Amino acid sequence: MTDQADSTHRATAGALTEPLTPQGHALLEILDRHLPGMASGTTAHDRDGTFPLDVFQRLGDDGVLGATVPPELGGLGVSSVHDVCLAVKRIAETDASVALSLHMQFSRGITMSYEREHGTGTGPALAERLLRLMGTKKALISGALKDAGVTTELVPAADGGWRLTGRKILVSMAPFATHFVVAAQTRPTSGNPLTASAFLPAGTPGLKAPDNWNGMGMRASASTEVLLQDCPVPASDVFVRGPAGVRNDAAMAGQTVSSIGLLGVYAGIAQAARDFTVTGIARHGGEPAAAVRTLIAELDVKLYTLRTALAAALAHTDHHAHRTTGDPDERGRLMMAPFQYAKLIVNRTAASIVEDCMTLVGGASFTADHPLSRHYRDVRAGWFMQPFTYADAIDHLSAHALGTDTAGGTP
Amino acid sequence: MTDQADSTHRATAGALTEPLTPQGHALLEILDRHLPGMASGTTAHDRDGTFPLDVFQRLGDDGVLGATVPPELGGLGVSSVHDVCLAVKRIAETDASVALSLHMQFSRGITMSYEREHGTGTGPALAERLLRLMGTKKALISGALKDAGVTTELVPAADGGWRLTGRKILVSMAPFATHFVVAAQTRPTSGNPLTASAFLPAGTPGLKAPDNWNGMGMRASASTEVLLQDCPVPASDVFVRGPAGVRNDAAMAGQTVSSIGLLGVYAGIAQAARDFTVTGIARHGGEPAAAVRTLIAELDVKLYTLRTALAAALAHTDHHAHRTTGDPDERGRLMMAPFQYAKLIVNRTAASIVEDCMTLVGGASFTADHPLSRHYRDVRAGWFMQPFTYADAIDHLSAHALGTDTAGGTP
Amino acid sequence: MTDQADSTHRATAGALTEPLTPQGHALLEILDRHLPGMASGTTAHDRDGTFPLDVFQRLGDDGVLGATVPPELGGLGVSSVHDVCLAVKRIAETDASVALSLHMQFSRGITMSYEREHGTGTGPALAERLLRLMGTKKALISGALKDAGVTTELVPAADGGWRLTGRKILVSMAPFATHFVVAAQTRPTSGNPLTASAFLPAGTPGLKAPDNWNGMGMRASASTEVLLQDCPVPASDVFVRGPAGVRNDAAMAGQTVSSIGLLGVYAGIAQAARDFTVTGIARHGGEPAAAVRTLIAELDVKLYTLRTALAAALAHTDHHAHRTTGDPDERGRLMMAPFQYAKLIVNRTAASIVEDCMTLVGGASFTADHPLSRHYRDVRAGWFMQPFTYADAIDHLSAHALGTDTAGGTP
Amino acid sequence: MTDQADSTHRATAGALTEPLTPQGHALLEILDRHLPGMASGTTAHDRDGTFPLDVFQRLGDDGVLGATVPPELGGLGVSSVHDVCLAVKRIAETDASVALSLHMQFSRGITMSYEREHGTGTGPALAERLLRLMGTKKALISGALKDAGVTTELVPAADGGWRLTGRKILVSMAPFATHFVVAAQTRPTSGNPLTASAFLPAGTPGLKAPDNWNGMGMRASASTEVLLQDCPVPASDVFVRGPAGVRNDAAMAGQTVSSIGLLGVYAGIAQAARDFTVTGIARHGGEPAAAVRTLIAELDVKLYTLRTALAAALAHTDHHAHRTTGDPDERGRLMMAPFQYAKLIVNRTAASIVEDCMTLVGGASFTADHPLSRHYRDVRAGWFMQPFTYADAIDHLSAHALGTDTAGGTP
Repeated sequence: MTDQADSTHRATAGALTEPLTPQGHALLEILDRHLPGMASGTTAHDRDGTFPLDVFQRLGDDGVLGATVPPELGGLGVSSVHDVCLAVKRIAETDASVALSLHMQFSRGITMSYEREHGTGTGPALAERLLRLMGTKKALISGALKDAGVTTELVPAADGGWRLTGRKILVSMAPFATHFVVAAQTRPTSGNPLTASAFLPAGTPGLKAPDNWNGMGMRASASTEVLLQDCPVPASDVFVRGPAGVRNDAAMAGQTVSSIGLLGVYAGIAQAARDFTVTGIARHGGEPAAAVRTLIAELDVKLYTLRTALAAALAHTDHHAHRTTGDPDERGRLMMAPFQYAKLIVNRTAASIVEDCMTLVGGASFTADHPLSRHYRDVRAGWFMQPFTYADAIDHLSAHALGTDTAGGTP
Repeated sequence: MTDQADSTHRATAGALTEPLTPQGHALLEILDRHLPGMASGTTAHDRDGTFPLDVFQRLGDDGVLGATVPPELGGLGVSSVHDVCLAVKRIAETDASVALSLHMQFSRGITMSYEREHGTGTGPALAERLLRLMGTKKALISGALKDAGVTTELVPAADGGWRLTGRKILVSMAPFATHFVVAAQTRPTSGNPLTASAFLPAGTPGLKAPDNWNGMGMRASASTEVLLQDCPVPASDVFVRGPAGVRNDAAMAGQTVSSIGLLGVYAGIAQAARDFTVTGIARHGGEPAAAVRTLIAELDVKLYTLRTALAAALAHTDHHAHRTTGDPDERGRLMMAPFQYAKLIVNRTAASIVEDCMTLVGGASFTADHPLSRHYRDVRAGWFMQPFTYADAIDHLSAHALGTDTAGGTP
Repeated sequence: MTDQADSTHRATAGALTEPLTPQGHALLEILDRHLPGMASGTTAHDRDGTFPLDVFQRLGDDGVLGATVPPELGGLGVSSVHDVCLAVKRIAETDASVALSLHMQFSRGITMSYEREHGTGTGPALAERLLRLMGTKKALISGALKDAGVTTELVPAADGGWRLTGRKILVSMAPFATHFVVAAQTRPTSGNPLTASAFLPAGTPGLKAPDNWNGMGMRASASTEVLLQDCPVPASDVFVRGPAGVRNDAAMAGQTVSSIGLLGVYAGIAQAARDFTVTGIARHGGEPAAAVRTLIAELDVKLYTLRTALAAALAHTDHHAHRTTGDPDERGRLMMAPFQYAKLIVNRTAASIVEDCMTLVGGASFTADHPLSRHYRDVRAGWFMQPFTYADAIDHLSAHALGTDTAGGTP
Repeated sequence: MTDQADSTHRATAGALTEPLTPQGHALLEILDRHLPGMASGTTAHDRDGTFPLDVFQRLGDDGVLGATVPPELGGLGVSSVHDVCLAVKRIAETDASVALSLHMQFSRGITMSYEREHGTGTGPALAERLLRLMGTKKALISGALKDAGVTTELVPAADGGWRLTGRKILVSMAPFATHFVVAAQTRPTSGNPLTASAFLPAGTPGLKAPDNWNGMGMRASASTEVLLQDCPVPASDVFVRGPAGVRNDAAMAGQTVSSIGLLGVYAGIAQAARDFTVTGIARHGGEPAAAVRTLIAELDVKLYTLRTALAAALAHTDHHAHRTTGDPDERGRLMMAPFQYAKLIVNRTAASIVEDCMTLVGGASFTADHPLSRHYRDVRAGWFMQPFTYADAIDHLSAHALGTDTAGGTP
């Protein structure tokens, strides 16, 4: 890489506009062909709360569902979290629900690639199996994280495998997924419970994912609940992690890698709202009112704030993602802090941008099917994204600043 | 009035919690009986975008539709804008759409009472007719202000009356109104056009109000369009004002009186969101996280900001509403400024309160039928309320501060 | 009082511009005669950090040092906290340091009048003595509250009186005061320590108040330290309160009455900064830039926020100040909350107004002796005013919202 | 450069903590040796408003005054604006006044190096002369930009040179500079006036720079006025630019390069305030109050906002600084926008950080010689930095967003 090219990358990385890798570039080119078709259905899917399955099928035909799967397993080989986030942003400018769902797929490819290289036990083989399904079979894999009250559990089965029981909420794409990865705790006959993730095909007995999502926003994301009742899971289909209920700072590295790209959803919403609004005012011509000019300039200040903070946190994530030397707990903490800074910055500025745009556009934006109405409803989802509520983030970041987060212990 | 009672009034006026007049007190007592019934339908009406006609009928049975009509014409005689706003706030804590619609009815009574006393020409007799319909016949009167592009016009008819033609948008209650007051311009055969308001029964030939409102929020307010095609209007049914297209600062007094109470809608939304959230956290018990405690304290600072600014602007409005001496243009300017200050303060703090509440409550508030989701969608309407967009308000207030708003001229 | 007059008061109270009582009106008239003379020295006293003793002497000649002393004891009889705050605001528009010092004098008169009527033990007689000194002898009484580390203590003396030892900081007017009221704890030979306040003339042996204040702002307030070494205090010169170290919610009533008027200092700074800036731009003429117009309008929105919140909290204080029935702890809590809301609102908006004014005025405001430079340095003091730091206020207000502040106990 | 090293740079660039070039690294190492000595005088120089000439002499002995001069002319060869800004930030953490002055010296080296390579007419030779003076003779060169009212002019002299007359304000280091570069307009005997810059040694007849700076902040920067009365300037000592009074977008490239590094001053102030405060709270130990924890976490969110936006704008500047192909007007506009975004972000977040730190530290920070008091006074200077006031920036950025800034014309 020449100095000149490097300089280009550095400069444009700040703007979150150009991919950093050739694979990221190829992904964006494919996506750009699909965006017009996606756009044609956005309003109706938002209104009706329906999942645009046809969009995912067409994206699958072009390999997008395996975008982050290594080429040798049939994927496009995108490995930069920055480039994943940029792709997610680009999609979200058209449809934030689709972007939310695809991010889950993209981040799965990246974390499974890491697991395949660095995992232990059943991990590497299972990860390779998932990646191959995504890369060659258009598998659509939903991640089920959040429990509805009770902890989802894996109980030892007579056949040496497990039985999975629980109830998950906010599982995007669930009614249309071909497979699931479900966070759970083991309840071993002896010893301490462990955190784990179970892999299940959609047809597994006892698994139900009713198509009844009715969100205020992200209405085309099918973020429903998933019911699990004694679902059989072979031993080879479970990733087993560390002891349950014990603080694990090292795990924050994986959480950062798998979640930070999601901020691209809100960056895309903000960008779309700003572009829609400013383009409209420019087209209208004439000398805008004093407050309009002030708001427009401040819109771009906000968008720059959002994009530069996010780009920096992504660069930081990409940098540390591939460094596996040193203290893994310290690495986890180092990665989480900029992610959380960026999350707060993105959530606040994106929401503020959308609100200012509605003020500029006026009453028309208050009708249910106006693009800004959709952005306004969608953008609020950012506050509820894993990991960390606002209160958790404040606890985490203040302890990080004061240096009181280094002692281990239960969370 | 004793000093003690006066002091009570002053103190509680700051809090926007107690009515200032016995009539306002009586209105609140009636409303309190209706709120539980209203609450039972709020979620469904919001989801389906339907108008709670039964609620209005029951309120009508108790005289609420004539709340601001003088007693001698059959009404409850509420004449304080502060008390109207407080009633609107109380209703909005349960259903902001109902509050929005009722405010139109309440403010009509106040402006018509003023017209009846101080109007000229056809004004006093027509105003008394309207008041009597509201006070004794449960008339539900929609105000149609905003043109959809072209100016709505009154053209002289052969019979000495007028023909009204135009298209209005955002007319709350329109499909269910018994009567309309429609802002228009006359197009006289000679001389200059005048601003005017035409009064029409719902069944007037050429008038259509399709029940198809589909807002992002305020979904139970039936804020549809009204189509007017050569609707016949007798000469006696038109209020004629000053020359069209000429800046009229004196008219800002009436605009302030008729619109400021609407801010109670957003005060009520903020209050409901805050109470729902804080009550939930208090019920949960335990020591809340640092950020939760900080947000809760700041919520109440914001609510105090909102309530005290609004209460002060209402007191100012009530004070000047009944003073008709002095320069009417200066009176108009004096009344508009605090209204606009309060409007910006209410819009910003109410939205910020709802957003903080969603952050505190978490992901559950992101489902379509959660109360906070409804508040979040409803609260945004405040920016689109008459008169003045944000840009207009900045132009107006900066000119007011610099003293460049005193010279007459076209707007 | 007629309805009309009442309405006038209510309306203008919202604006914090007109006094509520004839005594308050008389005080303002006297002050207005002194402001030009005060203004002539403001820049020099700020630059040199000197106390304008001549100003206080001239004010004393006109009875201002006894403004809040009852007429029968030689004072002007101002008893409304609202009117005290308005007077403080008016002075602070010219010189915030003088306003800060005079507020201490004004609030002393109000709390001593309350003590004279409602106190027990040595209280009423001592209070009357203080009031008479203020009303007839131009006594200038400094309050010494804040300990520099160690707790200031009253130790029993052989003669049946006390010896006072400690070190106080941020005692405004100290080098020029004729008397001091010093917060302390008793250290009795048996039993629990009590909170108390000792009254001492300036010449008391062992008392030193070096004239060495060097603040970033409030430079003319002589807010130095006071050193106390075995100062003799007769038993009759000590106000004894409740047990030390025990939470005393009832005491918050007195804290509110004695401190809330101080917010007038920051209201006055904000008003002066705004008026200076807007007047300058108006004088300059021409069409101001878009951002200038936007900032000016927003300045007045901020000033309205500040004034209406403060006026409401003052009305609330005046209302409860004279109600001594009911649970005194609940009264204390009821009074403190709006004071703290208003304090946060005033501190934030006043600082923001001054900063926007500097942005509007430009580089000239960055020279040391520019009025806006003085306002910028002075305004920051608001965050350090008794009682409650920001952290304390958040703890207090969140507990108040959650209802967890009603159980007694140590603080 | 390996991918790994590149990735490191990218990641850390986001944090504005590591230099991008070896020369930048060498400069930081030299500076680090001088910071303790600099720190020992900071409080006294701020109090007395004196210029730390000894600091500049010691820095000069180590080559720092020629830091951005090419090595072949005796300098350290730092050419990255990012690295200049980082050095400025590091110095400002200790003394913002010194950083402000040194930035002027550093940016001179960069713009003169560009002039030497790309200039025309007298430019390259004069630029090389200046650089050599800086690189080998410890020349301290003040830039005089801002006129005090009347335009500073160069009038043709009988000897073929010029006579320079005018009055400049806010010229940092002026009483101690060895040379000056003074912005002026020519007043030719025929033809149109041109913009120009004149180079003068400190001893030039008619030039006076009285040592009387008395700023609210930046008190050790000696930012005095410079009086010029018929100062003789040889023709070879003047840079002549384009026609005066004509908008010149291309010139915005040079303005960006020469001014953006100054934002490091405010980044350094914010960093120092944050580190002082958080370190103090951490040292104190215990469980901080809820609001303290919230403010600390938000402090770091703000600092991340500041650092990432500034780092991105610096990377953008470095990228475009060396690209001289394409439309020079478009290049100027492209470079100015991110600079202005970053300037607004830095000014706001830096001020907000300092204010939160004072709130956290409490009343001690209100004394005149407390580090936070100095930061509070210094940080406000950011709003007055060239080019563009806030109003200008809003006009510029809104036109940039709307695409109305591309047509040439008078400004």
